[in-house]
Formats: sequence, C-alpha cells, structure tokens
Amino acid sequence: MTNINIGIIGYGYWGPNIVRNFAEIPQVQVTIISDLKPELLTKAQARYPTIQVTTNCRDIFTDPKINAVVIATPVSTHFDLALAALQAGKHVLVEKPMTVSSEQAIRLIEEAEKRNLVLMVDHTFVYTGAIRKMRDLVVTNAIGNIYYYDSVRVNLGLFQHDVNVIWDLAVHDLSIMNYILPSQPYAVSATGMSHVVGEPENIAYLTLFFEGNLIAHIHVNWLAPVKVRRTLIGGSQRMIVYNDLEPSEKVKVYDKGITVNGNNSAEKVYQMLIGYRTGDMWSPQLDMTEALRTEGLHFIECIEKGKRPITDGQAGFQVVKILEAATESMRTQGRLIELDKVGVAA
Amino acid sequence: MTNINIGIIGYGYWGPNIVRNFAEIPQVQVTIISDLKPELLTKAQARYPTIQVTTNCRDIFTDPKINAVVIATPVSTHFDLALAALQAGKHVLVEKPMTVSSEQAIRLIEEAEKRNLVLMVDHTFVYTGAIRKMRDLVVTNAIGNIYYYDSVRVNLGLFQHDVNVIWDLAVHDLSIMNYILPSQPYAVSATGMSHVVGEPENIAYLTLFFEGNLIAHIHVNWLAPVKVRRTLIGGSQRMIVYNDLEPSEKVKVYDKGITVNGNNSAEKVYQMLIGYRTGDMWSPQLDMTEALRTEGLHFIECIEKGKRPITDGQAGFQVVKILEAATESMRTQGRLIELDKVGVAA
Amino acid sequence: MTNINIGIIGYGYWGPNIVRNFAEIPQVQVTIISDLKPELLTKAQARYPTIQVTTNCRDIFTDPKINAVVIATPVSTHFDLALAALQAGKHVLVEKPMTVSSEQAIRLIEEAEKRNLVLMVDHTFVYTGAIRKMRDLVVTNAIGNIYYYDSVRVNLGLFQHDVNVIWDLAVHDLSIMNYILPSQPYAVSATGMSHVVGEPENIAYLTLFFEGNLIAHIHVNWLAPVKVRRTLIGGSQRMIVYNDLEPSEKVKVYDKGITVNGNNSAEKVYQMLIGYRTGDMWSPQLDMTEALRTEGLHFIECIEKGKRPITDGQAGFQVVKILEAATESMRTQGRLIELDKVGVAA
Amino acid sequence: MTNINIGIIGYGYWGPNIVRNFAEIPQVQVTIISDLKPELLTKAQARYPTIQVTTNCRDIFTDPKINAVVIATPVSTHFDLALAALQAGKHVLVEKPMTVSSEQAIRLIEEAEKRNLVLMVDHTFVYTGAIRKMRDLVVTNAIGNIYYYDSVRVNLGLFQHDVNVIWDLAVHDLSIMNYILPSQPYAVSATGMSHVVGEPENIAYLTLFFEGNLIAHIHVNWLAPVKVRRTLIGGSQRMIVYNDLEPSEKVKVYDKGITVNGNNSAEKVYQMLIGYRTGDMWSPQLDMTEALRTEGLHFIECIEKGKRPITDGQAGFQVVKILEAATESMRTQGRLIELDKVGVAA
Repeated sequence: MTNINIGIIGYGYWGPNIVRNFAEIPQVQVTIISDLKPELLTKAQARYPTIQVTTNCRDIFTDPKINAVVIATPVSTHFDLALAALQAGKHVLVEKPMTVSSEQAIRLIEEAEKRNLVLMVDHTFVYTGAIRKMRDLVVTNAIGNIYYYDSVRVNLGLFQHDVNVIWDLAVHDLSIMNYILPSQPYAVSATGMSHVVGEPENIAYLTLFFEGNLIAHIHVNWLAPVKVRRTLIGGSQRMIVYNDLEPSEKVKVYDKGITVNGNNSAEKVYQMLIGYRTGDMWSPQLDMTEALRTEGLHFIECIEKGKRPITDGQAGFQVVKILEAATESMRTQGRLIELDKVGVAA
Repeated sequence: MTNINIGIIGYGYWGPNIVRNFAEIPQVQVTIISDLKPELLTKAQARYPTIQVTTNCRDIFTDPKINAVVIATPVSTHFDLALAALQAGKHVLVEKPMTVSSEQAIRLIEEAEKRNLVLMVDHTFVYTGAIRKMRDLVVTNAIGNIYYYDSVRVNLGLFQHDVNVIWDLAVHDLSIMNYILPSQPYAVSATGMSHVVGEPENIAYLTLFFEGNLIAHIHVNWLAPVKVRRTLIGGSQRMIVYNDLEPSEKVKVYDKGITVNGNNSAEKVYQMLIGYRTGDMWSPQLDMTEALRTEGLHFIECIEKGKRPITDGQAGFQVVKILEAATESMRTQGRLIELDKVGVAA
Repeated sequence: MTNINIGIIGYGYWGPNIVRNFAEIPQVQVTIISDLKPELLTKAQARYPTIQVTTNCRDIFTDPKINAVVIATPVSTHFDLALAALQAGKHVLVEKPMTVSSEQAIRLIEEAEKRNLVLMVDHTFVYTGAIRKMRDLVVTNAIGNIYYYDSVRVNLGLFQHDVNVIWDLAVHDLSIMNYILPSQPYAVSATGMSHVVGEPENIAYLTLFFEGNLIAHIHVNWLAPVKVRRTLIGGSQRMIVYNDLEPSEKVKVYDKGITVNGNNSAEKVYQMLIGYRTGDMWSPQLDMTEALRTEGLHFIECIEKGKRPITDGQAGFQVVKILEAATESMRTQGRLIELDKVGVAA
Repeated sequence: MTNINIGIIGYGYWGPNIVRNFAEIPQVQVTIISDLKPELLTKAQARYPTIQVTTNCRDIFTDPKINAVVIATPVSTHFDLALAALQAGKHVLVEKPMTVSSEQAIRLIEEAEKRNLVLMVDHTFVYTGAIRKMRDLVVTNAIGNIYYYDSVRVNLGLFQHDVNVIWDLAVHDLSIMNYILPSQPYAVSATGMSHVVGEPENIAYLTLFFEGNLIAHIHVNWLAPVKVRRTLIGGSQRMIVYNDLEPSEKVKVYDKGITVNGNNSAEKVYQMLIGYRTGDMWSPQLDMTEALRTEGLHFIECIEKGKRPITDGQAGFQVVKILEAATESMRTQGRLIELDKVGVAA
C-alpha cells in the first residue's frame, strides 16, 4: 500500500464531497486543490488547513509527486483538463458526463491506454448500494429477461445554461443502464422542449431501443412541482421499483409478471393466452456506504493494482454517445438516431 | 321533462355500470339490454327483472319507443352499431375510443348532424370532479401558460388482444387533454414494444407537439409491478399534480415556478437569469359524484334541449385521430406524424 | 351437505353485505329478511325478489325451516334477539360487539351450550387475509416473543350516539388481538374525551397490560382529518407494520430488532448492551377473498360439522369484557381496571 | 452590537451542530469548547483550529471574557453545570430536558433571575418553521378551539440507559405543546414498558388533561420498525396534520370538522345532531432556516437586549414537571398524577 497524492480541480458543488471522501481514505493524501474562484479556495483552506490551493491548475500537472487528478469542473472543460493530466502522466477521475462529444471521449481513452494510466468516469450512482443490488438481481437472473427500464427524474431547478436537461439528469440513468443492463442500445428517439427563450431544453423524453424486445425510457424535467426519482424495471421473472427518495426500502422486488400459455385451443385463444402472476414483494437491505467513498476506494485500487475501473473511459464514452444522439433526435422531434453511426471507440 | 327510453348494447365489463347509473335517473327508463352472451343477460335480468333483454341488438333499433342507445361493446363494433342506431333515429352514446379509424368517426358525425341527433362519446374522466376542477384552473388562468402535460398510467394487466396499450389506456389522457388544454396537438411521436409474440404493444410512450412551447407526454404500460395514475401539469403561474389513486387530495396545486429575469448585467447573465418561486400547496375539495352519473345526466340534458355534448363526436374524432397517428409513429420507432394529414372531420 | 335456511335481522349498513355473501354460498338459502324500516325491506326485495321480508323478527324465530339467524342490528338489541333465536333453536351469528355487557355475553354462551347450538360473533377482520397471515407469523414464531401491539384507527365520522368510540372502533383491534396474541390482557387503562356536549367520547386511548412484557395500545378517534388504519407489532425476532389502507402490501414484515449482549465488561456496560439489527423487509401476498365470504363459509361449516367457531361466544365475551373495563377506566381518567374482576364466562 | 464570547460544554452528538451554528453568527465568537473525551476535542480542533479546547469545563467558568455558556451534556449533569455557569455570571443555554427534576429547574430559574442572566432551554423544535407556522395558526384562531393534540414519535434506537423513552422523545412534544397550546395540562396518565431487563422503559404512552375539553396524547417508542413523526391537531374550525419526515409539505391544514346542530326536532335527534364539514386542504410554505440558527440568533438577541427567551427556564420547568409526573404515572400503570402537586416555580 503506497501513498497516493491526489490533486483536485474544481471546488464548486461536487468538489467538497470529493475532497472529504478522499481525505478519509488512509493511503491517500489530498495534496492540492485548484479552482478559478479564490473565495472557494479560501473556504477549502479553512476546512483543510494542510492542503495546498491554487487558481492555476497547471500547478497540479507539473507537480511530480501528484499521482492522480480528480476533475470536478463544468463539462466543457473536461477534455482539455483530462488530456493535460494524462499527458502529465497522472491517473484521472473525471466528472460525468465525461466530455461534450464522443470524439473527445475516444481521444481520452486512447491517451490513457497509450500511457497505461487509469481513466475513470464519476458515474456516482453505480457505486450506491441500491444500484449494485439491482445489478446483482439482473446478473443472477432473478429478474429473468429484461423487458424494459423506465425512469422518471424530475424536480424544480437547477436550470443549466450550457447543457440541456438530458446532459444534466438523463446522464444518471444512462450510466446506471450501462452498468445494469446486459446490452447496449442500438438507437434512440428523443423529444423535448425549452420553456425559457434562448435556453436549452428543460424537459425531455428519451426512448432507447435494444436488440430483442428490451426498451428503455427516461423522463427528465427541471420544471416539475415535485421531486421524483423512480425507476421501474420489468422482467420475465420479477419486476423492480427503485425509488431513490425513500429513506429506506429504496429497492422493491415484486414477484409479479405474466405467463403466456402456448397450448391454446383454437376457440378460446384470446382468453387463455395471458395469465397474471402475483406473489410476495421483497425489499432487500442495502449497503448504505456513501457512494463516493466506495468509488474513491475503487479508483485507488485500480491505480494500485493496474485494474480497469467499472466506470472506465469506455463506459463514459457509451454514455456521451447516447447523450449526443438524444440531443440530435430531440432537435428533430423524435427522429430515430442509430447509435453505431455515432463515433466509435477503439 | 319527457320520459326517455334507453336501450343498452353490451353488458360486459362497463355495461352494468351504465345500466345502474341510467336506472337511477328519474326521467329515464332503461327499457332493453342486448348482449351476444345469454349468461350476461341472465345476470342482467336477475338484477333488473323489469328490463327486457335480447341477444339481437336489432330489436333495439326497430323499437319505436326507444329514444337513445348506449353502445358498450368492443371498439371494432362501434361504427356499425352506432351507424345503425343513428339511421334508426336514435340518439347515441358510444364507449371510447369512438371508432377504430378517424374516417369512421367522421362518417358518424356526419350522420348525426344530418339527422339532428345527439352523438356523444363516453370520455368518462371528463365528467369526474378532478378533471372538471383542473379545467377550471386552466380556464381561469390560475395555471398561466401551460408548458407541459405529463401522464403515467401503468399497472399489471389486462392485456388486450385486438388493440394496443395506447388504444386501451392513452385514450383516457387524450380525452382529458382534449377537454383541458387550450389547443390541439399538431404532431405526435410515439415509441413502444410488445413483450408477447404476436400480441399488440403492451408498453408505449407518446409525445404530442402543440403550437407554441406546449408539449405533452403519455406513458402507458400493461406490465408494471405497481399501479400508477399520475399527471403533472406545468404552467407559468402554477403547477398541478393529479394522482387519481389518492382517496382524497387527488388534485394538488403548487404555487411554484420559475421567473425569468431579462434585465441582466452582461457579466452575471447565467446566474441571474432564472429564479425559482415556491409557495403554498393547495388541494381543492372535489365533487365526488360518480362520473357516469354526471355524464348520464348530461346526455339526457343534451337530448332534451338539443344541446351539443361536451364530449361530442368531434372530441371522439380528435382522440381517434391521435390514436391512429400514434400507432403509426410507434411502428416506425418514433417517426413524427403530423396530425392534419390524418383524415379531417367536416 | 344439507341445505341451510338463514334468516337475517337488520338490513341497514352491514346487512346488505351479509345477505349478498350468504346468497352466494351454494348450500345456503337466505329465506327471510327482517327490519323495522319498511323502506329498507323494499330495497331488499328489489334486489332479491325471491327472499321473504318482514318488519316482525318473530316471524323468523317461529319459522321451523329456518336453521340459523344472523343479527345485524344496533348493539343494544343483540342480547334479546340472540337469546330469542337460541331459545327458538336457531344457530346464531351476531354482529360485534356481541352485547352491551359481559353478563349478557355469558348468558348467551350458556344458552348456546345448553342447546348445543353454534354461537358465533362477527369479528370480521379475523377472516381477512391480512390478519390470518399475521396470526401465521405469530404462531410459527417468525415474530418471536411479542413485545407490543400498537394500533391507530382514526378518521372523520361517523359519530355514534349510543356507544362511545371504543365500542365502535377499538372493538376491531380487540377482536384482532384476541385472535393473534398468545394471551389475554389482565388489566386496562384508558383515557378519552367527548367534544360534543352530551355525546359519548369521540377520542380514546387504551393501554392493555399482559403478563410478561407484552403491552398493547389502541388509539381511536372519530374526529381526525385523515383516515389512518395502522398497526405496529414488535417482537424479539421481527416486527410488522399492517396498513389496512394500502391497496396491496398491507402487511410488511421487517427483519429488524435489538440484540441484548449479556457479556459486558463492567466498564463499557452501557455502550455495549444493546445492538440494532436491520435486514430485509418482506411483504407477503395475501388471500384477497372478501372476509365476509370466508366468515360465512366458516359459520356454515360449524353448523354442519358441529364445530366451534374461531370467533365463538367466548371470543365475543372477552372483547366485551375489555370494552366495559376500558369505558370504566376512561371515565376515571385512566384508573387501572383489572379484567378478572369483570364478569367471568363459564 | 457587541461581540459575545461563547463557551460550549459537550462536543458529543449535538455539540458539533451548536458550534457550527454559533460560529456562523457574525457578532458571536465561539471561544472555547470543553468535553471529557480528548478524542472529541481533537476532532473539534481539526474542524475549528482557532477555538480553544479543554477537558476541564471550569476553564470556561473562570474565563472572564466568556459571556455565555451552552451546555450540551447528559441531562444528569445539566443542573450542576448550569448553576456553576450562572454563579460565574454567564448567560446559559441548556440542552433539553432542562434538568432531572423540577426542583432543580426552579433553583436555576431563581439563580438566573437573581443575577439578571438569560436562562434559555434548547427546545429546538420551537424554532422550526413548521412549529412556528402551527403556532400562528393557533394564535390567529384559524384552528378554532383546540380539541386534541396527538403525536406519534417512534423509530428503532437509540436506546438510552440513564433516562426512559419519555425523557428522550416525549420531551420534544411537550416543548412543542408548551409553545403552541393556549393552556397548561393539569394532570397526566402514562403507561409504558421496558423490553430489556434492567433498562428503562422503551415504549410509552402519555395522556395529558387540560381544563375544558382539550386532551393530548403522545406515543414514543425506541423499538419500532419504521420511523414515524406525525402529529394530529384537531380544532373546532380546522385540523392539522404535521409530518416532520415529509421533505416538503410538512404541515397540512384541513378545512374539516363537525357542526353540531342544536335545533333538533325531538324525533330525529340522533340523525340530525352532527354534520360533517369537508373542504380544501392547504399546505403553507415554511421557513426552512435551520432551527438551531434561529434559536442561536434568539439567544444572542435576548442577551443583547435583556429579553426573556421564548423557551425560558419557566418553559423548561413546565416540561420537566410533566416528565416527572409521567414517569411516576407510568410506574403505577396509568395512575392520574395532578401536575399542580409537582414542585411549583416561583
């Protein structure tokens, strides 16, 4: 267990959580924090008097004792900062979405592979107890064949100005699906609307098509009167309701479904065809460890052991590719965009 | 107040509710019930010994004392039965969806107008206290400009075999929107999937586009682990959450929204642009009269006074037109279908 | 399987449900209905043209072909009617509460035993799927030692004039406890208040003490802004939340509790003593058969086979005894009333 | 606005919240923190490098620049510490419950009055937006005459070893009632049980009697499978449901109630007597300022202006008096304890 020195770029909304979690990992030293706003650095220093601060992130890249860089800045800056970090020989953990384009994502993946560095994307939900439990249920076939993934993620605010609501909120569901579902979507159709002149879309609906009969849908909205975070997953064996706002019982597994009876007499074919099966509901206890802690430990383990992260550059690229395609589809009122025609990762 | 004699065709799922409600209206006499299944007629007679029953619905059309006919049969039969009834000089109340095609709907509208007969469609929700209250809120401008209408209507079963889930469930939302919203949609994009080979789609998502910045979306699903009936309506002044499963407090009105500040200094444009406004929530008491009773009284009033029903043939046509277009869009994975290219009513 | 002829006394609130359920049991013939109000009998006859009606309940007692009588009248009349029915040789199913005093209950038990007739009390909840599942969980020791039973049963209305809220609402919980819990309480302390001058108490709180460390509490209220029907049952192994207003998932079983660690070092005794155990939650599927149907079948089976009903006269007596004691305690602001000093059944 | 130096005794569960809130008040300087556990002081110093720490609280009393002391230690130590602080001429804010006996509370009140010092008790809930809104509703007569206050406050853990569940949880409701209700209770009846041998009661039920027809009830439980924090307040004009676990809409005001009709004809007296009134529900927006901040500002204002705090020693005494009486009643299984026979404050 060697000591790892980490530099963190960006101390705005998410940065303090990142610093707090890495600061609590024994073999990690958060060495330096950079941010363009001096007042945020003052805050950081009051909280962590021993950590160095700077308004110039180049100080991080040029510091030879820094092993890894965490980038928690607006998405438009991710590519330049991550590329510079990799080129300086640092391992990189970058906020989601990984980049503003899939081409940029591919470029970062290539750079990391060439230099044998860890490139990880902060798909935070993947590291929660709820999502890991749901993946277990899928992998162990408790759900059976997956029929659909349906998510609603709406609330009032915060309107973004540089990205539409898909890049802000749907990115969570795309990263969750990327981890949970057995395959990648082949096409997307999206619709949406802006309700503030000159601003990006604040409400959007995405449908994702997969080979076979799996379909996914995501509803995101910055202008909803209530907060909703609910996902339904339907399968041939069981169905899941995941409500992230429940303090406990976030994941409920329903022993419900349909049975299709193939041996029908010719006459009564319609009445006999489909049966409904309802059984118990079960809500498994979840690991309540803070996701960022689990994620931080995983990042460090990948660095130490040369492992590939669960949410690696490829996962980040897959998500960005769908965000790009969904935005294009939304601007053409639902036109189907095939995903393999979007830039392909090596 | 003259006495009105009513014949009812179809005593399956919905028919008994129709008979019960019309039987309780003083000036109405439910005279005859027809159904193809003798066992259902036996049930009807046990319950209502004085009502005549028949397996031949022509007995209703040829009976000169019958003033009006209610049609509660599968949708594929609506056109022939309604047309025959109108041609026999009877007023007609027909189950939703009105017909299987917009052409059929137009034909019925024309027949009714030619004969000066009432043609009404059973858009039941329009006659509930909740929906009428919501229309009041829209009409009195309490909501302001409407930004979106978003509905989720999912549960386990009952799978239909002759129509897809849009015709079975989205028809409710379309009839509600037809009543509540200030304009008609100009185009639809829909996606969906069937999870039983050879059966119609059991999950579907519809986006409806309106002139201006109003967008509507409907999610319907026969294969969900939980029952959800929830509609969000966003407006510039207030927002509504309508949860039909709540025993009380079905409609909640939120004094919430955004304010857009146009007088920005050049520098802080992004931070200043959008403000969030949150105030009280208010849940108005609703008229709890059974919708079918209100609807039955309205049908009788239209017959007696020669009035046009709220849910007239035109409303039925508008809904069928969207159902047709949505089905076509769904089969082409979200292709935008413009609604004025679908058959136009006189 | 012989044919059983039943007479029903009282066609007010509950009577129609009783008639409907018995009418659907094959070997049962509802032969006659009596009620003091002719308008209710007119209703009954419209619904059931073949059933005889009368305003004189003596017609039932004197009819030799009647085997059993169901009494669904105000509680003050239960004793006289049940006694007359038993003396006429009829089996009896009587509404809850069984009688207005425990002495009356004992008298009925004695009369039924002397004549070898079935005497059953309509403790309806005992025949629901939820309560039967909860008893299974207790009997199979899934809950462990039971620590407490806590119930809230409140809503707005209907105020009774002849009995206080304990006799109207707490009777449900007492009958449920009588069925579920392994022992009888030995004392009760109750408090309450009337908010309408001259009327009985409309809010009340009962604590029941059992041998060992089991305690039960019931909160009943006719003047609550919301309807609540929730029971918590705590045990050494698991805990139950029973919410009767949930359309599904009425019963939730929590794998939660405390573990008491006896091997404490002297120093850290307090910190070490109690550990908290939390695990999965599980909501078993319930039999959704209407309780009155299950109960009716049980009554008939008891008559046919000479069996003792689950909710026999003794159960009815136990409940009445507690109602009496609770009312007495409430009027003395919580004074402890020992239950073995209340009239004892043979 | 003079500068006020504050010393804080106790840096366990609640202390860090107190320090954080006082540290953010401009004219306040948190000067020193004391705790018996050095490891907690290490934590405090890491977080607040400029604040002095000590294991000897006498260092606070003897420091002449300290103006006020906040005591956040176990209740058994409150009296000695508060008395010492007052005798040293410091203003005092003491955790709830104020003391372990009403006699001690009186002694502190007398000491503070003699020395003209502020003595405030940390009845935190009184400073929340929800409780202040509810008091407004009572004071402005929106609720009418108050009929009952009913609270449920249950969850799993944390078992206390030195005080029973009444002193730990019911203290919140008693402090809320002390602030909201128009009068003081005259007697209490309580029941409860311990489920761990040798430990204090972990479940308890309190009924409080007031002059007129107001009754209050509190259910507290450390061994419940779910967390509940719900209070019902019934009045002659409106009723309130206060659910502290709701993220928004914590307070709902129901325009519901009964109307008593005095002009009854002799015959139909029962049917006519009571009418039910149901109207809209309204959930007012609440001030979401952290209670401890509002409370801290109030403490400082009282010191600066010589004002009497809302939650003064008298309020603390009233609460302790009821806690004492309730514990006595609980140990005698509900025996009514009259509150004016408990020690009286000057």
